[in-house]
Amino acid sequence: MKHRELVVGLVQMAAARDPAINVEKAAWKIREIAHRGAQVICLPELFRTTYFPRQYDEAAFCLAEPIPGPTTERFSQLAAELGVVLVVPVFERRAPGLYHNTAVVLDADGSIAGVYRKAHIPDDPLFYEKYYFAPGDTGFRSFATRYGPVGVLICWDQWFPEAARAVALHGASIIFYPSAIGWLASEKATEGERQRLAWQTVHRAQAIMNGLYVAAVNRVGREGEGTESVEFWGSSCVFSPEGELLGEAATDAEDLLVVRCGLDAIERARRGWPFLRDRRVDLYEVLLRRWAE
Amino acid sequence: MKHRELVVGLVQMAAARDPAINVEKAAWKIREIAHRGAQVICLPELFRTTYFPRQYDEAAFCLAEPIPGPTTERFSQLAAELGVVLVVPVFERRAPGLYHNTAVVLDADGSIAGVYRKAHIPDDPLFYEKYYFAPGDTGFRSFATRYGPVGVLICWDQWFPEAARAVALHGASIIFYPSAIGWLASEKATEGERQRLAWQTVHRAQAIMNGLYVAAVNRVGREGEGTESVEFWGSSCVFSPEGELLGEAATDAEDLLVVRCGLDAIERARRGWPFLRDRRVDLYEVLLRRWAE
Repeated sequence: MKHRELVVGLVQMAAARDPAINVEKAAWKIREIAHRGAQVICLPELFRTTYFPRQYDEAAFCLAEPIPGPTTERFSQLAAELGVVLVVPVFERRAPGLYHNTAVVLDADGSIAGVYRKAHIPDDPLFYEKYYFAPGDTGFRSFATRYGPVGVLICWDQWFPEAARAVALHGASIIFYPSAIGWLASEKATEGERQRLAWQTVHRAQAIMNGLYVAAVNRVGREGEGTESVEFWGSSCVFSPEGELLGEAATDAEDLLVVRCGLDAIERARRGWPFLRDRRVDLYEVLLRRWAE
Repeated sequence: MKHRELVVGLVQMAAARDPAINVEKAAWKIREIAHRGAQVICLPELFRTTYFPRQYDEAAFCLAEPIPGPTTERFSQLAAELGVVLVVPVFERRAPGLYHNTAVVLDADGSIAGVYRKAHIPDDPLFYEKYYFAPGDTGFRSFATRYGPVGVLICWDQWFPEAARAVALHGASIIFYPSAIGWLASEKATEGERQRLAWQTVHRAQAIMNGLYVAAVNRVGREGEGTESVEFWGSSCVFSPEGELLGEAATDAEDLLVVRCGLDAIERARRGWPFLRDRRVDLYEVLLRRWAE
């Protein structure tokens, strides 16, 4: 059976202090959005915890867990029960002292369809990810699932067109971007709307340039106090292969988005603007260098 | 002397049948925009002629000329006289039977600072460029000019993030995109606004992802009749390294845009969102392939 449509479900959540609460809330929301018809459901980056990379805190490494592990087992059961594909971010403990910012794709029978480890690791004020996460080594993939080929990248990866292109070349129909992006208190008034617009613009452009769907799932809510706080801006969104905004969540509240993605639109977009035909693979070697000179 | 600012001038033009008229009009408009302060001035793709790739016409090859040749000589003199850098598209006759869609960067002393041959050649109804132009072999560069390092890509190149990234890695502060993009009569009502928005979105995204200025210079006006016509949509635009729209021309009229581009904004943008620091050059080899599997 060939599916003509993929129904995407995005769970935009805020995080509580207690991981058990976040896991139960995510499970409950997955149940709700599945009942509304979603087939491939994605949670925000590091949904199980508050955004601990906001601070340097050695104790936070205790939050990590193996794959498979408690979180993948919990959501594997749920995926199988509901017959849905789940994209589940995990703070991965791969070995003692080796941690990754990871997302697991669970197929609709509960098996692990694939693991993606975040390749591009940010490190900016209140986003101290290089302290916690080793750069991913899975490369960029597409994972076969019951509902078609699904790609996953994570948050900061979005700004690197190399990553989206690589996932497209592996045959994905959609790229999910579990994310945790927000405003610093010191910047929101002057820079906030420009930053949020840039974020959506670049998601939209990756969809257009690669002729596939893009679904970004952000967390929401303020974490921390005053100048040490981050206000995650929500705004989870889905763009079509032709760059249309198909759905958008609130900036300041939890939200569920269910978006029907017709798969014919992928080939239609790529016939109209056939970028894959015209790539000059003989001229791109400079992309493998840090700087050209 | 280190310039802190680059003043961009974009000449959005319609084309007459007679190349001599287009050349004189371009020269006149360059004079006007230079007097308004522009330092680096760009003309639209193939500005010297109507958009002949709209049809298969062997006689059109007679419009091509060598580099250096009459057009580069004419505009070299003008560049030197006015003390401005010019980006001048040329239908290039490189050898008998070998033609390119090219742009020449003329430095402010009239010398040739660089030549770029369009790498990505479109071929779609009413845009039969593969018939006329061999794919460019110059690769992607930045050219040193009196007013700083300038990159050039041409029209269809814009949809390939590989090209913009490559120019950025060569150190350009700005990428000019001389263009000839427009609506087919059969599509304008249903697809037109989405297409124009996608075009600007992708320009904006290249500016953001590479932390540099992007200036797109389109032609304007309808060429041809009925279902054989193309209505070039103008909308020439300049985006800052942070994705702000700094200037935009009309969709339906000739226009001149003068935009002051502060060069400090490049490093400011790249410090705020340090993508160049975090590229995973060890993971990008798949980009040198047509398809991953």
